[in-house]
Amino acid sequence: MRVVSDANLPIGVFDSGMGGLTVLAALQRQLPTEDFIYLGDTARLPYGTKSAETVVRYARQAAGALVQRGIKALVVACNTASATALDALAQEFAPLSVFGVVEPGAAAACAVADASGVTVLATESTIAGGAYQRALLRGQPTLRVLGRPCPLWVTLAEQGSVASTLSDAILLVGVSGITRSPVSATSPSTLLLGCTHFPVFRDALQRLLGDGVRVIDSAQTAASTVAAALTEHGLASAHGGKTVFLATDGVARFQRVGAVFMGGSLDSLANVELVDI
Amino acid sequence: MRVVSDANLPIGVFDSGMGGLTVLAALQRQLPTEDFIYLGDTARLPYGTKSAETVVRYARQAAGALVQRGIKALVVACNTASATALDALAQEFAPLSVFGVVEPGAAAACAVADASGVTVLATESTIAGGAYQRALLRGQPTLRVLGRPCPLWVTLAEQGSVASTLSDAILLVGVSGITRSPVSATSPSTLLLGCTHFPVFRDALQRLLGDGVRVIDSAQTAASTVAAALTEHGLASAHGGKTVFLATDGVARFQRVGAVFMGGSLDSLANVELVDI
Repeated sequence: MRVVSDANLPIGVFDSGMGGLTVLAALQRQLPTEDFIYLGDTARLPYGTKSAETVVRYARQAAGALVQRGIKALVVACNTASATALDALAQEFAPLSVFGVVEPGAAAACAVADASGVTVLATESTIAGGAYQRALLRGQPTLRVLGRPCPLWVTLAEQGSVASTLSDAILLVGVSGITRSPVSATSPSTLLLGCTHFPVFRDALQRLLGDGVRVIDSAQTAASTVAAALTEHGLASAHGGKTVFLATDGVARFQRVGAVFMGGSLDSLANVELVDI
Repeated sequence: MRVVSDANLPIGVFDSGMGGLTVLAALQRQLPTEDFIYLGDTARLPYGTKSAETVVRYARQAAGALVQRGIKALVVACNTASATALDALAQEFAPLSVFGVVEPGAAAACAVADASGVTVLATESTIAGGAYQRALLRGQPTLRVLGRPCPLWVTLAEQGSVASTLSDAILLVGVSGITRSPVSATSPSTLLLGCTHFPVFRDALQRLLGDGVRVIDSAQTAASTVAAALTEHGLASAHGGKTVFLATDGVARFQRVGAVFMGGSLDSLANVELVDI
């Protein structure tokens, strides 16, 4: 790991919008004495339907805005940007440590998967790009891997519709034919939630699919990876605990939708600074 | 109407993405001997969840790219941009004629509405901005007007899910409690589809809600308004019929999703030029 040397700097976290707040929340829980600076590129969300070139360009601008403010590590809390732009960011901002969510999520899924394999649920561009599928196969070359785009889930999560008859129906259509239960006994029993929005559906999916299906998200394991790396390199802080929020558009919507991903509390999102990047 | 003078120039049409192709298709049907140039700002779609300032900035850049190529009139085939940026565009590009979709749609709804009123179905920002509601009340000051955001419908349309059990469920939730049938006899009997994506649901909505509900979209009436203005000012062409397509990102997705809005044919979208604006 290549790092800059000031443990007192915040950890920078960026996402195309509010979904990355699920990763921030996991980081805050695991690293309660760290400062964070979160940037949501809400003016240009979603990244998930855009081309790789455009995602790389946007990710470099977003990361650059955080680096300019001073950070000791960068977490790309956006699956699409993690899948597409991580190498470009690590190269551009070296020696800063850059962490994504794809590798930790894939590692966690590999660790629990059985012979039935893993289904990755994500945005159109994350699935089409194949980064999760490749990361899973690097971890376990004989694994059965299926990718399934779930664009409706993104909109559903942003509406805060986490538990309703309609959201259940949309969730079930998303996993139809690719889960062990109720459709097929030969389908993968591990679901990897490859989009930052999807952890909000974790409980509903478990309820709908039963205990025979394991639901994995990247936020927890990504946070553990960052925590371990900071400790290893003597960059952990014991004095922080503040988070600064930046958004490139629509502060009111950021707060309202963001509360869904932060677990319902608007208080922590009271101050969001509008920035142009 | 203020116009530039060359009838041989194409009509410029822009939208945040592919939804505006429903308006283009209506224009092509009513003006088969005109040339068109269509720009989809796919790198930054959707506009519908972004702030007014950002939408105005993006709309000026998109319109500017068309004006630079030479057009005889500009059609803003995006409800969000029509609702937010029409005055700014008319001012910036005067004496070019600039047409939106909000006023024609509102006029068509006013013309058929009864005492039960009109429900506007649109994106979050179109409803929050209130442009349709104001336009309806200008046309008929005592009209009962309801606005309802339907963000899931946008994703659904882009998936091409126009007729399925799930799409029916999503459509019914969108109109629940605000339509005459089946929920309430005192609800508005006129539905105004205030998003360019929504004409693809026209038949499904009519089937679900029955003949007692009138479903109006802006594309047809906007096209009629443009046709009448061109004729009135001697700017109609009898020699054209070609359409040039531009997109700011993701040509393959533009073609695939665009076919949904153009009525299923990929042929007319065979050549899409990628532009940076």
